[in-house]
Amino acid sequence: MDSKEKKVPEVVIRRLPRYYRYLDELAREGKTRISSNALSKKMGVTASQIRQDFNYFGGFGQQGYGYNIINLLDELKKLLGVTRGYNAIIVGAGHLGHALTNYAGIKRRGFKIIGAFDNDTQKIGKDLCGVKISDIKNIESFIKKNDVDIAILSLPRENTQEVADKLIGMGIKGLWNFSFVELESNDKVVIENVHLTDSLMALSFKMNRNEE
Amino acid sequence: MDSKEKKVPEVVIRRLPRYYRYLDELAREGKTRISSNALSKKMGVTASQIRQDFNYFGGFGQQGYGYNIINLLDELKKLLGVTRGYNAIIVGAGHLGHALTNYAGIKRRGFKIIGAFDNDTQKIGKDLCGVKISDIKNIESFIKKNDVDIAILSLPRENTQEVADKLIGMGIKGLWNFSFVELESNDKVVIENVHLTDSLMALSFKMNRNEE
Repeated sequence: MDSKEKKVPEVVIRRLPRYYRYLDELAREGKTRISSNALSKKMGVTASQIRQDFNYFGGFGQQGYGYNIINLLDELKKLLGVTRGYNAIIVGAGHLGHALTNYAGIKRRGFKIIGAFDNDTQKIGKDLCGVKISDIKNIESFIKKNDVDIAILSLPRENTQEVADKLIGMGIKGLWNFSFVELESNDKVVIENVHLTDSLMALSFKMNRNEE
Repeated sequence: MDSKEKKVPEVVIRRLPRYYRYLDELAREGKTRISSNALSKKMGVTASQIRQDFNYFGGFGQQGYGYNIINLLDELKKLLGVTRGYNAIIVGAGHLGHALTNYAGIKRRGFKIIGAFDNDTQKIGKDLCGVKISDIKNIESFIKKNDVDIAILSLPRENTQEVADKLIGMGIKGLWNFSFVELESNDKVVIENVHLTDSLMALSFKMNRNEE
């Protein structure tokens, strides 16, 4: 398909999960159609921007006065890999690792956490929301035996680069990285660095500005 | 100052924490200056975009070949409220609440977590990284006695709106909301809704596209 060859700008990629969330919410409420105006209002972007976004993927067939929510959601699910059933492992089974294993939104989006690893003997063997925590020494053999797509890194800053290099060497295709260190994507691996404090700082910027 | 009256676009606000992170990293490495080209490369935006961003705040005095990292960082700290020493409380002391209390980046940015609340009797009285977990019934008296700026919501979806309304009624100025529910800012309160899965979906979009 031609539309798949188009390079999708980063800002458009960032809007796709938001479209997905809003439409999923509407579907839960039993809605079946949304006008482009209503979607535009929810997203805080113009209707023309939405059309442009969707045109990267063939347009998603807007008809008449709006979009069919179920169809649109299905298309977004395919694009966003929700239908792929990606398997993930947690590397670093601390509180954040625990919270992520338990995070309803992850399962709801078709991701399955199939393993958890730590180097802390206090944690090894324990249960992480239904997943047994294994010794990080066994991560290589686990990856050989299982189909692991994504590693979720929630481990100390100082260990991150080494662990990431090892995982990439083992053929892991995606890293969801919560470990402060800024890792770089390349043609072998896609990396998403999460900086939780970025949103806290946006919050405090706005509070600060309100008070001035 | 005139520059403070300018409405800062959301995209610019979103870049400010990233400027802060990059410059903070450089300062840690002992660097004192950065050229606008180098900063532009790190940020993935043009040097002219950076100048435009900074012009919302008076320009930050770029001189000669680049920026003074320490000065720029100081200005960003002021803008982002890092120097305000905002006090925060955790509402919902599960694993995510625990992880956030322990999250080094939050302290590093000048925020202090001074209380934690839950309705689970198993948790009440226990320690959350140095902060005692209190009964959520006592949250009102705590807020009356203490100077609480921000509430960090990491509680179940179904309780969120009610708790948020209560906190806003008590004069809390900022909500950092991890609870799936999309809360709306108004002239009384700034709300930052965090959707962790948005970045996971951006990751899986890119993985999915690589494989196609």
